Amino acid sequence: MLSGPSHFRIMGAHDGLTAKLAENAGFEAIWAGGLGISSSYLVPDAGLLTMTEFVNAAAQMRAACTLPIIADVDAGFGDVNVVRRMVRLYEAAGIDAVCIEDKQYPKRNSFRGGQHLEEPRAFAQKIATAKAAQCDTDFVVVARLESLIAGAGMDDALSRAELYHDAGADAVLIHSRLSDAGEIREFCRRWQATGRNVPVLCVPTTYAGTTATELGDMGIRGIIYANHAIRVSVKAVTEVLASIAKHDSTAPIEYSLASLSDLFGLIGMNDVLNDVPWEGAADSVEAR
Amino acid sequence: MLSGPSHFRIMGAHDGLTAKLAENAGFEAIWAGGLGISSSYLVPDAGLLTMTEFVNAAAQMRAACTLPIIADVDAGFGDVNVVRRMVRLYEAAGIDAVCIEDKQYPKRNSFRGGQHLEEPRAFAQKIATAKAAQCDTDFVVVARLESLIAGAGMDDALSRAELYHDAGADAVLIHSRLSDAGEIREFCRRWQATGRNVPVLCVPTTYAGTTATELGDMGIRGIIYANHAIRVSVKAVTEVLASIAKHDSTAPIEYSLASLSDLFGLIGMNDVLNDVPWEGAADSVEAR
Amino acid sequence: MLSGPSHFRIMGAHDGLTAKLAENAGFEAIWAGGLGISSSYLVPDAGLLTMTEFVNAAAQMRAACTLPIIADVDAGFGDVNVVRRMVRLYEAAGIDAVCIEDKQYPKRNSFRGGQHLEEPRAFAQKIATAKAAQCDTDFVVVARLESLIAGAGMDDALSRAELYHDAGADAVLIHSRLSDAGEIREFCRRWQATGRNVPVLCVPTTYAGTTATELGDMGIRGIIYANHAIRVSVKAVTEVLASIAKHDSTAPIEYSLASLSDLFGLIGMNDVLNDVPWEGAADSVEAR
Amino acid sequence: MLSGPSHFRIMGAHDGLTAKLAENAGFEAIWAGGLGISSSYLVPDAGLLTMTEFVNAAAQMRAACTLPIIADVDAGFGDVNVVRRMVRLYEAAGIDAVCIEDKQYPKRNSFRGGQHLEEPRAFAQKIATAKAAQCDTDFVVVARLESLIAGAGMDDALSRAELYHDAGADAVLIHSRLSDAGEIREFCRRWQATGRNVPVLCVPTTYAGTTATELGDMGIRGIIYANHAIRVSVKAVTEVLASIAKHDSTAPIEYSLASLSDLFGLIGMNDVLNDVPWEGAADSVEAR
Repeated sequence: MLSGPSHFRIMGAHDGLTAKLAENAGFEAIWAGGLGISSSYLVPDAGLLTMTEFVNAAAQMRAACTLPIIADVDAGFGDVNVVRRMVRLYEAAGIDAVCIEDKQYPKRNSFRGGQHLEEPRAFAQKIATAKAAQCDTDFVVVARLESLIAGAGMDDALSRAELYHDAGADAVLIHSRLSDAGEIREFCRRWQATGRNVPVLCVPTTYAGTTATELGDMGIRGIIYANHAIRVSVKAVTEVLASIAKHDSTAPIEYSLASLSDLFGLIGMNDVLNDVPWEGAADSVEAR
Repeated sequence: MLSGPSHFRIMGAHDGLTAKLAENAGFEAIWAGGLGISSSYLVPDAGLLTMTEFVNAAAQMRAACTLPIIADVDAGFGDVNVVRRMVRLYEAAGIDAVCIEDKQYPKRNSFRGGQHLEEPRAFAQKIATAKAAQCDTDFVVVARLESLIAGAGMDDALSRAELYHDAGADAVLIHSRLSDAGEIREFCRRWQATGRNVPVLCVPTTYAGTTATELGDMGIRGIIYANHAIRVSVKAVTEVLASIAKHDSTAPIEYSLASLSDLFGLIGMNDVLNDVPWEGAADSVEAR
Repeated sequence: MLSGPSHFRIMGAHDGLTAKLAENAGFEAIWAGGLGISSSYLVPDAGLLTMTEFVNAAAQMRAACTLPIIADVDAGFGDVNVVRRMVRLYEAAGIDAVCIEDKQYPKRNSFRGGQHLEEPRAFAQKIATAKAAQCDTDFVVVARLESLIAGAGMDDALSRAELYHDAGADAVLIHSRLSDAGEIREFCRRWQATGRNVPVLCVPTTYAGTTATELGDMGIRGIIYANHAIRVSVKAVTEVLASIAKHDSTAPIEYSLASLSDLFGLIGMNDVLNDVPWEGAADSVEAR
Repeated sequence: MLSGPSHFRIMGAHDGLTAKLAENAGFEAIWAGGLGISSSYLVPDAGLLTMTEFVNAAAQMRAACTLPIIADVDAGFGDVNVVRRMVRLYEAAGIDAVCIEDKQYPKRNSFRGGQHLEEPRAFAQKIATAKAAQCDTDFVVVARLESLIAGAGMDDALSRAELYHDAGADAVLIHSRLSDAGEIREFCRRWQATGRNVPVLCVPTTYAGTTATELGDMGIRGIIYANHAIRVSVKAVTEVLASIAKHDSTAPIEYSLASLSDLFGLIGMNDVLNDVPWEGAADSVEAR
């Protein structure tokens, strides 16, 4: 998919259910996102959940859908040794890719200078370590560039992208928080000028007015909708619970609910096997 | 709360986030429901998730809110020995109550007679075992009566309720799937006539037109909205993802999302501590 | 290995460490045994640990060694639906085989008749379901025969073995608790006479005087030393701790300990990476 | 125990089983040690296991014995926010104390200067944060001093101890790797001279010739045997497995094994409940 000719759309999920809903809606890959998963725990998205909690969430998604899954692994949960174990555990869980960001880990004390980006060669070593650790040749390591977020500028982003690619990154994610896609366009233009044929991903949370097709035309390969599933859940659940509390009954909001029948279909209740004695053929295992 | 004078409303949650949303909406307790948690995994609600998966979900809720939590533990996940370990693990996780239902475990083969209710004295033994296992005197064991669902009738429900109470149940849950509260009313009337001062809970999924206050007036102590949070999530996420896929952008559905600012507030990003050197007082630990 | 010409020896492990020690000692496969894992938790071996706890222990072994791993899954942790999920989760964890035993689940009430063996066709359905659930064509399902333990006799064991093989079992495990290998010899002889070319495993806990080679000569393919690692640990730790308590010091038992240096070598401390900046080649990832 | 008049002995455990064996041998507390738990996973003791993996191991010990448990939490698994969550999760798991060490987290790149100790006031802030996070007034936070290991000297150890105590530490652990207890004696003498009535713990791995009583006489309150249970297991299992492999049978090493009967007694098989119908009294729940 990364090496294909056209862009693809990646939906953020936070559990098995939302991964399946993303698949059903036609998205082509899953983003096992840090903000979404942290939010489902009601834990701040600040490096607090453990790798075990994140990999368990991703494994839940793996069991629930057939799409490729890209796991957001923050800064890699520790030093190069942790990165090595991290790659092995995500691979073992059947995850297709990890996306490591070039922020320091953990967040440094402010009196240490207030810098937030990792030193380029220290981060490149994480990328090289991750690539050296993988067993499956198809496993993908994405390097996420935070230069534009941290105020380090476009030149920094591009020189880091080249370094991370040299270190083995299979793709880069350029992160921007502008309300338009100007930085994305510029990055793609200059990146293509380097002649490196390396896919670029982006996260259009703030430049939502630009369509995926437009981003694809700029040269973006993967468009990540990182946190929309969790955010719509929060709003919808909040409103429905307020209504139930107010009206002392669920009757006024029944129209807002998936029917039990639809829910049962979604989670596979119709695929539950009947516990009957075996009658001589493997295909006697029938749904009831 | 169980021994108080008035009814209370219990909202079903499936993760830490929805537990907190229930608390924010004013509900007075949390139902860690089997259907909701199974659905979040995209696994059929048929005894498939393990006790570990269920207790971890409940523990996530425990960390996320301060309300009492009642865990739906199906038929207790096994025999009396499993029930004993189950009570100890739920207590250790800080859960306030478990609700065990009087169905057979696991679902019997149909050729064994098609019965689904557990034998009354076998189930009473589970209740007695659960009560004997608890360490905290405040821990609550609720016996869920499936007689009306299984077609065994009101007399069976009442005689079982008495037996389970004799065995130590702190409360009973009478389950009905009629579209009105007639069975609930009758059960409460006859239960009160026994003179047993034991709280009764119900789950008005199908008789949604009856308000919590009306159920309280019939004699119900706890009203459980078991699966509404998961069902509104499914519908809202489905619709929003379909729209993103169709419009190739999130712009048209931004109004359906909780703002990032609201989400950050909800998960405690404003409570993240600044990593500064200690300056001499424990209360120097300040939010940044 | 199962289809090879000669017998192989399988060592029971209860964590990653003992799995690696078994590999180092030259055993050819790992038995992720129920008694060993339960004992490491100090939980009775009576269906109390959850599938999650067992699969996590097996996954720990998977990360720790390269040998094939056979997971002891008791009676399959539930009905056919649980068996189906079980196979998928063990496969996803990289486990090579599961061994399901033909006992009832959970242990039946004694007043129901005291029988302990599952009905043959109900168990065959579990085997057929397990085989239908696997994704990897190399995954192996072993049917464990408890007929000789339950007093049902050799004819019962053989007729069950044929039925389970018809249902898809890749191998059978014949369990005996005699102090000699007489039952094993007879089973192998009569099983070979059926003309079925299906590997047979055994567990010589009680007939320890018969060597693996002798069992191989009888026709046994896999010899499982199910619980020796945990039992030697219990005895050695018990004695050493008693000595420390008595002598108020570890000096008298230092000779009983692996050296720190040996322990560090075993767990890979010498393979810990130095966290240096990247200098241009993936192979710059060096051990420190 | 910490405020009592006499010293006590703390045995390192790595799972529920070894925690129980420590209790049976008469030790008075459990050390849920990082090296032991990492070793049981066959993972280097270098900050690689996640907090989830460590807290699960400690929870297993909590369920297995009644002794106080001190969890070794390395440098606290992250920044102050992680420390806050860490204290809440360990408390929720029923653990009595955590011991945080004043090393940097994660291990810094050597080109950053090779220092390994955390800045004193940055570490003091972790201690203050940990104390502010606890809910139970009995929860204990131990500050582990690495000054003598890192070559920073005795004065550094003492000034840090005072600072950490000011920040709220309930006890300090002075770590030495000399082959005699000279540093321990000096630390205790100078610490008592400060007039601070704060318990001191030590880990006599290298000065094994000094008895617990002698250490107690110097002023040590808690003596931790950190890794002896895992080390004796490694040696004993290695030898027994080699013997089985060599002799092709377990017969020659049966004398080295705990008997099945003893193992069953240890893990509570005799306490397994009989699954009988309830006959009218809670105390009818009997062991079979």
